[in-house]
Amino acid sequence: MYTFEYPYRIRYADVDQMGFMYYGNYARLYEIGRVEALRDLGVRYKDVEEAGILMPVYENKSRYLQPAKYDDLLTIRVVVREIPRARIVFFYEILNSDKVCIHTGETTLVFLRADNNRITTCPPEILEKLKPWFDQ
Amino acid sequence: MYTFEYPYRIRYADVDQMGFMYYGNYARLYEIGRVEALRDLGVRYKDVEEAGILMPVYENKSRYLQPAKYDDLLTIRVVVREIPRARIVFFYEILNSDKVCIHTGETTLVFLRADNNRITTCPPEILEKLKPWFDQ
Amino acid sequence: MYTFEYPYRIRYADVDQMGFMYYGNYARLYEIGRVEALRDLGVRYKDVEEAGILMPVYENKSRYLQPAKYDDLLTIRVVVREIPRARIVFFYEILNSDKVCIHTGETTLVFLRADNNRITTCPPEILEKLKPWFDQ
Amino acid sequence: MYTFEYPYRIRYADVDQMGFMYYGNYARLYEIGRVEALRDLGVRYKDVEEAGILMPVYENKSRYLQPAKYDDLLTIRVVVREIPRARIVFFYEILNSDKVCIHTGETTLVFLRADNNRITTCPPEILEKLKPWFDQ
Repeated sequence: MYTFEYPYRIRYADVDQMGFMYYGNYARLYEIGRVEALRDLGVRYKDVEEAGILMPVYENKSRYLQPAKYDDLLTIRVVVREIPRARIVFFYEILNSDKVCIHTGETTLVFLRADNNRITTCPPEILEKLKPWFDQ
Repeated sequence: MYTFEYPYRIRYADVDQMGFMYYGNYARLYEIGRVEALRDLGVRYKDVEEAGILMPVYENKSRYLQPAKYDDLLTIRVVVREIPRARIVFFYEILNSDKVCIHTGETTLVFLRADNNRITTCPPEILEKLKPWFDQ
Repeated sequence: MYTFEYPYRIRYADVDQMGFMYYGNYARLYEIGRVEALRDLGVRYKDVEEAGILMPVYENKSRYLQPAKYDDLLTIRVVVREIPRARIVFFYEILNSDKVCIHTGETTLVFLRADNNRITTCPPEILEKLKPWFDQ
Repeated sequence: MYTFEYPYRIRYADVDQMGFMYYGNYARLYEIGRVEALRDLGVRYKDVEEAGILMPVYENKSRYLQPAKYDDLLTIRVVVREIPRARIVFFYEILNSDKVCIHTGETTLVFLRADNNRITTCPPEILEKLKPWFDQ
């Protein structure tokens, strides 16, 4: 299992007139979390794309437990529970500044070859970096 | 069962560098779909809020079957399958301009009293408008 | 002078915790206005891009006179005051549902050849459609 | 003169199909820049609002010199050139990772009393923190 945490400050641009983060904006936090998790592992998503592999989202699930409010400093916790094969699944917990989990989410991405637009398996450069976290 | 359809043109603001609608932007389409569905029934969500009932999202699920592309004229199909009680669930199908379903989604909202911040049941003004679609 | 109007309904996704449209979201309305203005003239921006001409924004100006509120049905008024040469300038007035002007804006776009990444002049297919509005 | 710098990583959510940051998303960077500049001075914008002063945007100007690209680590440079009175003006320079200025902007905000919805002058708690930067 690989776990990573990254901070996120809620902006005026993020909240709605309830004063809560708009429900559609959590997807942006997920993106930040998983891209920074990959960077922490030594994989830059931009390089993956330039090497010809796109990672479009296939499925996304969100559960809103408590609202996130303007100027809160959240923690995006990202977890990869299984070695990816045809798909990679990222799980998220969003914690507020009191470290209470206020939101959970889950995104499934596939690997797409840009040259022929066909589904492929997880590229070896991602697998190599993830494996040490699953070997024990 | 109540079904409603509403058009949506994809904007430059919506797409990412794959040329596809960004995965987080579908939530906006769901919002447009369900608010316009309610308006079509004779319920203005703004009035519901002004009467003291907020409808925060509790759960959201999305499945991305095919990409939606810049300038496509989509159809947002909204379905309410059950009379709401403590929650209301909206199901969505997003159709491309060839009327092929490229995306499905599902949002569960709760009813919150603004005065005491407590969960309540679906207000009668929404129930009344929905009931004729479920009576047969 | 060419003038065009297009409606826009403000969404929850657009407003902030003041209950007003977030100041950064007007750019989206400008985009909708100018793309629909071009479509009304018979020019689809998507086709312009596919023909190898990109139109990146060079300058943008906005003046916020009165707030735009959730669920308001706005009118985006788009005006082209001069035949474009190296640049095209779109002027906007945003009207609320009482037809009061609550916002003005101005966007200058340039024409960029996608093949060599160089600035060019307004393509003839846009000029032809605009000229009848400036001939008198 | 008060100057402050803050980093910003460009996300997939920010870019459009040209692969450049969408022109409307710079407003978000300005917001981040000025709110963090105020925080650096010892003023939390959230506290200003809770003390009854809103700061809506009156005017915004942007000049796009070069595109900002996916995953670039930008620097948002914020400058306050004059002691605010009825208005506060923030100037911005956005630098790419080579420290080249690719964008300039300028936002004018006013001070609004939430209780009576009337324009007021810059609150003393902001003035006090800014003054040391202008006294010499």
